[in-house]
Amino acid sequence: MKKIAIIGFGVVGSGVYEIIRKNKDILTKKAGEEIDVKRILDIRDFSDHEEAHLFTKDFNDLVNDDEISIIVETMGGIKFAYDYTKAALSAGKSVVTSNKELVAAHGDEFFRIAKENNVRYLYEASVGGGIPIIRPLANDVSANCVEEISGILNGTTNYILTKMFKENDSFESALKTAQELGYAEKDPTADVDGIDACRKISILMSLATGKKFDSSNVNTIGIRGITAEDVQYAAAIGCTIKLIGRGFTKDGKANASVEPMLIPHSCPLSGIEDVFNGVLVKGNMVDELLFYGRGAGKLPTASAVVGDIVDIVRSPQYNDYFTWEDGDSSAVIPYEDVKARFFVRITEDKKDKVKAIFGDTEIIKGVSDYGFVTKKMSVADLEKGIEALGGIVGKIRLFK
Amino acid sequence: MKKIAIIGFGVVGSGVYEIIRKNKDILTKKAGEEIDVKRILDIRDFSDHEEAHLFTKDFNDLVNDDEISIIVETMGGIKFAYDYTKAALSAGKSVVTSNKELVAAHGDEFFRIAKENNVRYLYEASVGGGIPIIRPLANDVSANCVEEISGILNGTTNYILTKMFKENDSFESALKTAQELGYAEKDPTADVDGIDACRKISILMSLATGKKFDSSNVNTIGIRGITAEDVQYAAAIGCTIKLIGRGFTKDGKANASVEPMLIPHSCPLSGIEDVFNGVLVKGNMVDELLFYGRGAGKLPTASAVVGDIVDIVRSPQYNDYFTWEDGDSSAVIPYEDVKARFFVRITEDKKDKVKAIFGDTEIIKGVSDYGFVTKKMSVADLEKGIEALGGIVGKIRLFK
Repeated sequence: MKKIAIIGFGVVGSGVYEIIRKNKDILTKKAGEEIDVKRILDIRDFSDHEEAHLFTKDFNDLVNDDEISIIVETMGGIKFAYDYTKAALSAGKSVVTSNKELVAAHGDEFFRIAKENNVRYLYEASVGGGIPIIRPLANDVSANCVEEISGILNGTTNYILTKMFKENDSFESALKTAQELGYAEKDPTADVDGIDACRKISILMSLATGKKFDSSNVNTIGIRGITAEDVQYAAAIGCTIKLIGRGFTKDGKANASVEPMLIPHSCPLSGIEDVFNGVLVKGNMVDELLFYGRGAGKLPTASAVVGDIVDIVRSPQYNDYFTWEDGDSSAVIPYEDVKARFFVRITEDKKDKVKAIFGDTEIIKGVSDYGFVTKKMSVADLEKGIEALGGIVGKIRLFK
Repeated sequence: MKKIAIIGFGVVGSGVYEIIRKNKDILTKKAGEEIDVKRILDIRDFSDHEEAHLFTKDFNDLVNDDEISIIVETMGGIKFAYDYTKAALSAGKSVVTSNKELVAAHGDEFFRIAKENNVRYLYEASVGGGIPIIRPLANDVSANCVEEISGILNGTTNYILTKMFKENDSFESALKTAQELGYAEKDPTADVDGIDACRKISILMSLATGKKFDSSNVNTIGIRGITAEDVQYAAAIGCTIKLIGRGFTKDGKANASVEPMLIPHSCPLSGIEDVFNGVLVKGNMVDELLFYGRGAGKLPTASAVVGDIVDIVRSPQYNDYFTWEDGDSSAVIPYEDVKARFFVRITEDKKDKVKAIFGDTEIIKGVSDYGFVTKKMSVADLEKGIEALGGIVGKIRLFK
């Protein structure tokens, strides 16, 4: 019998409890021994819960219990989660988390502590909810140099963008609906400004390169600036707009960014709608793989957490397959050097200057202004071109 | 240094060799030690190869070499591959294969021999080429009861059907093009009659249920009967046609089938085109996951083989995560009991009898005949209805 404890009985934590109760027989078979929840830490009152005796408000009840060998951290945030995780690992307990903020910021430190104590720190649920993406990156594409990772990593923004495209909704109206449906928080900053996606692409790139890719090195643009007219332009050039976390490696260096991108309908990411997530991984041998599923939600996310628990029951000792080391900012390709095509919106008075500065391109008439697609160029050269043009209305990077 | 041998230096085998040479540093890092190819068995002449000294025609040079701990079987077929695999496992060597025919037919036997010798038998490349699907099923969805697996598992037929839909090609003409491009064999039976997909869904269902799902219990229909008029009907009801290997579990029993199905455009499988493969897995907790990528080809398939090699270098001892036991035909849900909706084509004289037999439904006018969609009903009830109708032109199962 393997006894676990859960810290944080919110959406994901209660889902973990539910799966362990409901799929008990399957889990026993898969893990090779029974998995049971011994304690649950939450500061809220659960005295009405049918297993109220499991609940505690004292972390010492978990960390000092020698029977508990795995601690699930599903509380989120940094403050307490950091201390609890460190203490749990130091006490020789493996930790499973869905906390992307913590993994992105302190993963490398936790891997070191896990190694010292010969335990494991796993985080499949921190990216893509129920979608297997951490384990495939660590194991399945091991024969490859990972050249690129591009993902729709945030369900809230994907829901908003899908609504803007399908129902010609404005950003504000789509956000309001998302909030009413519980898909977006009251303060939607972490989602709509790309912060959540930024943490997730940091984790994926850290794992893919083996070196911490710090969130602060991810050029991050959210979706607040996307307008109904951008949507019309996108449709006119056969594209949809998605918030994409993208990382790539080149000559031992790496870049990562989060920004709204124009995705052609031929790309499998374009069809990923509503709160679904999808991650495209390009390996130098396997070419492109797509992993798709529910990027959030109680049971899908908890499914990933419980998958990690089973992994630890099977292999409780430290290994470095899922780890990365301290990063090095000199190995970061600056955003200015990233080469891409861009869709640029301009006022009518700039129309005649475009071809002299950006070369031959078709000028498209929108409702209130004009737009054109650049050839592939660096962000730095694009900025120079924009300066020469004397300013623009807006720009969006093309996925391809 | 881990030394391996390759049996069969065809498309996949030579790809394995290429990856091990090209991605040597990555593999050393991922596996924790260097992986090297010591011998290659092939009956053909490779005396011009730059490493001609590796080649042998004598299996004893591999199986009796104590330095070789992993044997890659990429020769295909049953006859020799069965004997070699058995001998290699019995000699205490782990085996990695891309041979779906062999895994589907004899997997359970090889797992037993692997257990007796505390070695491993892995087969990620046998289904979906480069797409990780075996390892995710074995590991990532371990928190779930797998309720359904539906996949486009054969690239050749998907190429043909894509061409029929996009270019209004006939089956014969699309097959001819596929043969010219090397996507289809001279004798295309295994692909177009669904035999290849049948082996693959057998493997997936055996792994998902832990019991051998024998290929002979898979109701298998290929795509030879699909006509240009079927394509037109499909388009008229907002669908595409794909050859789908589908399995599901219910109350401890299971069913698997291979047949062309009408897929609505809203289903992520509908957008998988040309030689790409995709597998939809439905777990009772995670809901639907899609795994998509190159289902065949030298380097993608070899990428999956080499991923298995890395797995074995990391964990050389037997475990039962990827195994299944002997099956039991009494646990098979008969095809007659499968419930689905069907598109039925009829001659004009049957038109007026449809509603009395199948209930209210819209009759669609085709070019040479008429069609309608049934409500959800068992295959057995469908057959009764067809008899009452006095025969039909044809029928295709709906995916949903």
